[in-house]
Amino acid sequence: MKKVAREAGLSQGILHYYFTDKRAILVAALERVMADLHQRVAREAGSTRDAGRRLRALVAGCLTQATEAREFWLVFVEFWGQTLHDRRLADINAELYARIRRLVGGIVAHGIRAGRFRRVDPEEAGAVILALVDGLSLQLTFDPQRFELGATRRLGEDAVFRYLARGPRSRGSSRNPSG
Amino acid sequence: MKKVAREAGLSQGILHYYFTDKRAILVAALERVMADLHQRVAREAGSTRDAGRRLRALVAGCLTQATEAREFWLVFVEFWGQTLHDRRLADINAELYARIRRLVGGIVAHGIRAGRFRRVDPEEAGAVILALVDGLSLQLTFDPQRFELGATRRLGEDAVFRYLARGPRSRGSSRNPSG
Repeated sequence: MKKVAREAGLSQGILHYYFTDKRAILVAALERVMADLHQRVAREAGSTRDAGRRLRALVAGCLTQATEAREFWLVFVEFWGQTLHDRRLADINAELYARIRRLVGGIVAHGIRAGRFRRVDPEEAGAVILALVDGLSLQLTFDPQRFELGATRRLGEDAVFRYLARGPRSRGSSRNPSG
Repeated sequence: MKKVAREAGLSQGILHYYFTDKRAILVAALERVMADLHQRVAREAGSTRDAGRRLRALVAGCLTQATEAREFWLVFVEFWGQTLHDRRLADINAELYARIRRLVGGIVAHGIRAGRFRRVDPEEAGAVILALVDGLSLQLTFDPQRFELGATRRLGEDAVFRYLARGPRSRGSSRNPSG
């Protein structure tokens, strides 16, 4: 708290007035970067109700955030570091992830009803799409030389739509039982 | 360094003899957890040369590591936290990720030659598969209540094989130009 107050140019008294402890600061930072992300995705989506376009907006918004707002992953990485030792932060993180999976799952369910996507469990699809976007964002953030935003965006969209595509699965998959 | 020496029950002199600084400790920790992961994946794969089975072993190995070896993500999260401020660690992380993409890309290329997977850029496929596995591992690690290893493994395998499946793309994808 002392260091945060110094870096922010605030007295410790003022900081303690707004935040009871370091955990409260981390939670506030997380809420702030998530609100920024939400706005960015909403801006990308515009007024469309189309499930495909909304998923594209999600991929574009998240990956753009990873390249343009370095503080996004800084906050998350710091947060994750703390969740490993702090049960309450772990619960907050789990709840946030569950909310995102439901949100993405809702878009997928809409696309299934419209006959655009195959019949998949929406929350499972939410987990897969969230994983893809998280994983690609991490590569964009930690390996900016290798990856260019536009190419990564196309890669993410392609993977999402292949996952949701109607039609037969790969032969590679059905031929090889686990083991 | 002082804190690490205390926690490890070593003198600072001994610690400095083996590691010049905190960065060296982090790099050694990263190498160790990556070697463990490599062994686990190799054990899962056994002697198979089949690209599909090798990708399954990769998914299974990484996700099992996320559930059974908590220190794996602890090391990575700590490492990522430092890469945001340390150029040399960022380079080491970028090099590690590039190596993994090439490794996975090599398996994919093998499957393409065998006619099992569609003709995709192997390194791009490596990025997508790595993203999926990273993202699902993070959900397993930070949300262990929601996810069960077996189900997550099937989810990951399904997503990987759908991504590599030969055949037409989703209509949802081709009908909706970006924007």
